Amino acid sequence: MRAYCIRGAGGPEVLKLEERPAPRPGPEEVRVRVRAAALNRADLLQMRGYYAPPPGVPVDIPGLEYAGEVVEVGARVTGLSPGAHVMGLVGGGAFAEELVTHERETLPVPPGLTLAQAAAIPEAFLTAHDALFLQGGLRGTERVLIHAVTSGVGSAAAQLAAAAGATVVGTGRSEAKLARAAAWGVHHVVHVTSGPPTFAAAVRERVGAVDVVLDLVGGPYLPETLEALAPRARYLLVGLLAGPVAELPLRTLLNRRVTLTGTVLRSRPLEEKIALARDFERTALPRFAGGQLTPVVDSILPMEELPRAAARMASDDTVGKLVLTW
Amino acid sequence: MRAYCIRGAGGPEVLKLEERPAPRPGPEEVRVRVRAAALNRADLLQMRGYYAPPPGVPVDIPGLEYAGEVVEVGARVTGLSPGAHVMGLVGGGAFAEELVTHERETLPVPPGLTLAQAAAIPEAFLTAHDALFLQGGLRGTERVLIHAVTSGVGSAAAQLAAAAGATVVGTGRSEAKLARAAAWGVHHVVHVTSGPPTFAAAVRERVGAVDVVLDLVGGPYLPETLEALAPRARYLLVGLLAGPVAELPLRTLLNRRVTLTGTVLRSRPLEEKIALARDFERTALPRFAGGQLTPVVDSILPMEELPRAAARMASDDTVGKLVLTW
Repeated sequence: MRAYCIRGAGGPEVLKLEERPAPRPGPEEVRVRVRAAALNRADLLQMRGYYAPPPGVPVDIPGLEYAGEVVEVGARVTGLSPGAHVMGLVGGGAFAEELVTHERETLPVPPGLTLAQAAAIPEAFLTAHDALFLQGGLRGTERVLIHAVTSGVGSAAAQLAAAAGATVVGTGRSEAKLARAAAWGVHHVVHVTSGPPTFAAAVRERVGAVDVVLDLVGGPYLPETLEALAPRARYLLVGLLAGPVAELPLRTLLNRRVTLTGTVLRSRPLEEKIALARDFERTALPRFAGGQLTPVVDSILPMEELPRAAARMASDDTVGKLVLTW
Repeated sequence: MRAYCIRGAGGPEVLKLEERPAPRPGPEEVRVRVRAAALNRADLLQMRGYYAPPPGVPVDIPGLEYAGEVVEVGARVTGLSPGAHVMGLVGGGAFAEELVTHERETLPVPPGLTLAQAAAIPEAFLTAHDALFLQGGLRGTERVLIHAVTSGVGSAAAQLAAAAGATVVGTGRSEAKLARAAAWGVHHVVHVTSGPPTFAAAVRERVGAVDVVLDLVGGPYLPETLEALAPRARYLLVGLLAGPVAELPLRTLLNRRVTLTGTVLRSRPLEEKIALARDFERTALPRFAGGQLTPVVDSILPMEELPRAAARMASDDTVGKLVLTW
């Protein structure tokens, strides 16, 4: 099979299309012919030599999410047969013509979506679903603040929260991008201008104090966000775009009884990844068929454009996923 | 009735013993003849003009925990009769001969304990129980780090965690006080010397990475503590002895999937206080009768010594509770 391999450490130029042996499924695994795979910032980090993949994953093939067809099943697989359309997260190895994954980690492709559209779902929607509902306990008519709401995870989180009945307020640094946020169910947007971020007062003015926060930004967003929180708020930190250190006002944390949780998906053990996939299938996936949820796709490009797509992602001018197809 | 009232803002000299009308119980409340009340740092803060009591509480009578006898019950009270020995938390007003409290917020005094000993239980043990088990989800043989383990909450937390089967490591700044920690079930102590706190390496050496942290100290303890945490650790912040701001290393929070929760009891609504009291009665209180849990009492003094006791607490040379008796 062909696969994009990382040769060296750096920008898109380290990606080389090579011939590799096809992977063989274990007894509970399926082999998938990848038709589409979406790009993530973690892939760029891995190309630069950071963010090493977890054990059991091809170390030099990037790619964290895919959609494709099952072509072979292991001896103990019971729920999938060759020909099934599946999508999912993998610890790495999605930018290849084939990959293997545990049967129970796969998700069915929702009816009405192409495989290219489906490839834009797993990372953004599973991350957001896990953070908002499984860890943040978002329920009913609560108020949700989503930072970087025009990012992949941000736009997925907005759709998931709005579909669940929450009031959604989103922040972003680009007014042009924020103009599109209403399409994802964002009820209010707050434009964060350059310089030290200030948004807490604007958030309170729009929706009052918020119950759940999804933050991909970190850094100086933390102390400012605490000013917008309701008592017993849950603050989920899923990214560090603005830096790895924050000054935390502990008195606010204490008095408002805030819970701050850092979370990543990639390093989790198999049983947690399976549990997340199954919960998502049961409680969120049906909403794609009904049109309540939609993958946000920036562009669908041939796989040979992967290095160019990586350069585009680094330039920060995308809205939604860059999907590469074989 | 007589009560200690706060007249002005400052040190122990603002406490004045005055005559006040006895409080009258509402239909679900009981009136308690207070026999003993223990002192807390929050009382000192309130005397200085900080930490105003929540609504519905005598604004000028300090005192957050008591033990005594029921002398009158409201019309809808079903579980208590005059003469019953009870103890509990109140939002304020415990340094008086009488107080009223909701029937369901009271706890029975464990058999074998005097009322003076019982008055040393509620604040320390309910705070620790709530943080460790209800919020921290401490279970089985997990490893627990308790900062300021010689404090009231610290020594209670150590006993509760050890009784539940956890491995307990405690930190403190006084070697003399730490020498007593084994009596509370602390398996390992780490002496934190003056200057910037360093203890993470010592904690890891003693017990490995820890699953749950109870921190009354805050400030520079936060980043150092994160270095000692296991994946999915729960960090409960219940005090700010070392300061209200911390530098938080977000990457560690993210990669280890840490949950950091700030928590206070005093401002909680009635239903939460009742739920906590009832859970504690069911799952922890029986351990006092068996001797697995013991209130840690520094001194039992006549109520007229309250100003002197407040001065002693401020001097920081106590181990365990200062209990005042009428």
